[in-house]
Amino acid sequence: VPFLDDLDTPSVVVDLDVLEANIGRMAAHAKESGVRLRPHAKTHKIPELARLQLAAGSTGISLAKIGEAEVFADAGIEDVFLAYPVVGAKKADRVLALSQRMRIAIGADSVAGAATIGDVFHAAGRRIEVLLKVDCGYHRVGVSPEAAVTTASRLAELPGIALRGVFTHAGHAYHASGRDEIDRIARTEGEILAQAAAEIRAAGIPVAEVSVGSTPTARGSMGVAGVTECRPGNYVYHDASQVSLGTCGLGDCAMTVLATVVSVPAPERAVLDCGSKTLSSDPLRPRGEGHGWILGRKSRLASLSEEHGVVRVEPGESFRVGERVRVLPNHACVVSNLHDRVVLARGDRVEGEWRVAARGRVR
Amino acid sequence: VPFLDDLDTPSVVVDLDVLEANIGRMAAHAKESGVRLRPHAKTHKIPELARLQLAAGSTGISLAKIGEAEVFADAGIEDVFLAYPVVGAKKADRVLALSQRMRIAIGADSVAGAATIGDVFHAAGRRIEVLLKVDCGYHRVGVSPEAAVTTASRLAELPGIALRGVFTHAGHAYHASGRDEIDRIARTEGEILAQAAAEIRAAGIPVAEVSVGSTPTARGSMGVAGVTECRPGNYVYHDASQVSLGTCGLGDCAMTVLATVVSVPAPERAVLDCGSKTLSSDPLRPRGEGHGWILGRKSRLASLSEEHGVVRVEPGESFRVGERVRVLPNHACVVSNLHDRVVLARGDRVEGEWRVAARGRVR
Repeated sequence: VPFLDDLDTPSVVVDLDVLEANIGRMAAHAKESGVRLRPHAKTHKIPELARLQLAAGSTGISLAKIGEAEVFADAGIEDVFLAYPVVGAKKADRVLALSQRMRIAIGADSVAGAATIGDVFHAAGRRIEVLLKVDCGYHRVGVSPEAAVTTASRLAELPGIALRGVFTHAGHAYHASGRDEIDRIARTEGEILAQAAAEIRAAGIPVAEVSVGSTPTARGSMGVAGVTECRPGNYVYHDASQVSLGTCGLGDCAMTVLATVVSVPAPERAVLDCGSKTLSSDPLRPRGEGHGWILGRKSRLASLSEEHGVVRVEPGESFRVGERVRVLPNHACVVSNLHDRVVLARGDRVEGEWRVAARGRVR
Repeated sequence: VPFLDDLDTPSVVVDLDVLEANIGRMAAHAKESGVRLRPHAKTHKIPELARLQLAAGSTGISLAKIGEAEVFADAGIEDVFLAYPVVGAKKADRVLALSQRMRIAIGADSVAGAATIGDVFHAAGRRIEVLLKVDCGYHRVGVSPEAAVTTASRLAELPGIALRGVFTHAGHAYHASGRDEIDRIARTEGEILAQAAAEIRAAGIPVAEVSVGSTPTARGSMGVAGVTECRPGNYVYHDASQVSLGTCGLGDCAMTVLATVVSVPAPERAVLDCGSKTLSSDPLRPRGEGHGWILGRKSRLASLSEEHGVVRVEPGESFRVGERVRVLPNHACVVSNLHDRVVLARGDRVEGEWRVAARGRVR
């Protein structure tokens, strides 16, 4: 299959030129800022893509699930941080097994949760490296900055635990009103975490890693004094939400979905062969309607059902049955999780495909 | 793994007692109504489950994508209707290949679209059975009832096409205000389609199948005179949306997600290890907030990120790290599409698992 025109639809297409530029640009920012880059590979779930990130200077990767880490370990990736509160004895056994194949650390935001992993490592005469999650304002998981020293102290005393550092995620940047607010969130993200690290060190506990992360805040938070590591994920692909947030331009989006118009039931309505089982139903961030932008058109996907993408046709535009279009999804990370493979292209030329090897590894 | 308590989380659990009751009840409704039942297997994508539906008296199954039909053909399923406007020469080749392994028909709502398939069948000296989609008020795909005779006439004259009948889908029932409106939509669904069939027959074109479908409207539309077939999908599992719509009770929901509390960062907030990559971000229908109900609790999932389900803890309830809960998802059909396997249980006892063999077959 040498050209995009030869592909059947819907197909997820990754433009390698754009991808490589995105990888290179973030690596350069990290280098200039003097911080380690540990990209979150949940965005792509593809070991080959992680190797490009590592070749560009990343020190390791971040993941959320043990099953993902197992896939990446099988592919030869050697350094993973599970940026997630890993909890439970069954999971501890698997982390212990992984720790004999790769350098692995986990996140924690509670003593009770971390103890379920530490106990298993302790029984094996080992210690698992842990980073304490601190809430920098997203209010999802993580201890409050005020509770960071106390929790860090208790984690550091737990059997089977070695405290590597602290981490945070400024997910609230995805709900920000504009670049100014994102820049403010990025500074706060770095400052809150660096301050927590300073207070923990003042209590006599070493903090080797101060790790921030999120694509919209990456450039801003990397520049904060005391930050040692950054974990952006989405930047490899970008998506309509990143364009809306002002993180990037349309030309920086590497992932699109090639689709076919299967029905034009009315002049104001056209239907594509990509629905929520292809694009996901994730909303556009920070706000806004619709489920995907059609490249080169003003018309957008107004609603999705499972296999139908319903386009509200803008005045002056029209679509015909059989026509092919490219859709920029709202959220690239969840699109990856729906597909077994992505097609690799440079412009219109197809160069191969990658298997989304860690897709669906929810445990 | 003999009991649910032995499973790691998150796991998608299907209760076989509930599943079998759901299958039996819909089959009985169809039998009483004297219509053929052709369940939409997009809900489960599991050939073993389709065989239970066929054993209960279904005449065949419905699917949306050719790739799904290929998986079901490999599993020995012999009669499939692709209830979707199938368009394009590449797809025509695959439908032609399938037609030599099973009885297969496709949907169409345009002459241009159907011709792309008919041309390939004609060149092979064959004809593909087609059902014309009629819009009964959902306004997604389908010709208007007024255009049904004209389009049916043109389809019937196309080379390589044999018109089997007409079909519709009352998807707007998922946005209805209550049972009264759903019952009205169900009657209208059947009446519009039966009327279209009568007009097409009056023009001298045979109509063998008059096929309605959707779980909320199934019982009502089956009872309309002239309807010959019904294609509900979701009824095998049901979900929080069906309970909200009044289609079923909580006890009729066969699919739940077993999850673990991984963080309790504040008294009013708990976080489960299931996010949009496990539950999807599909909204609750017909309206309402949240992303899943926790069985036995008033607290619900207020928001999701990719691997986090954030519970808004109701007054008087509490959660602890490590605790396990069962989540009733908003929309079962999209949950199936996220997971490679579902666990089979009867009550607390695990009986095995099924592979979601047609998961991710978007083409």
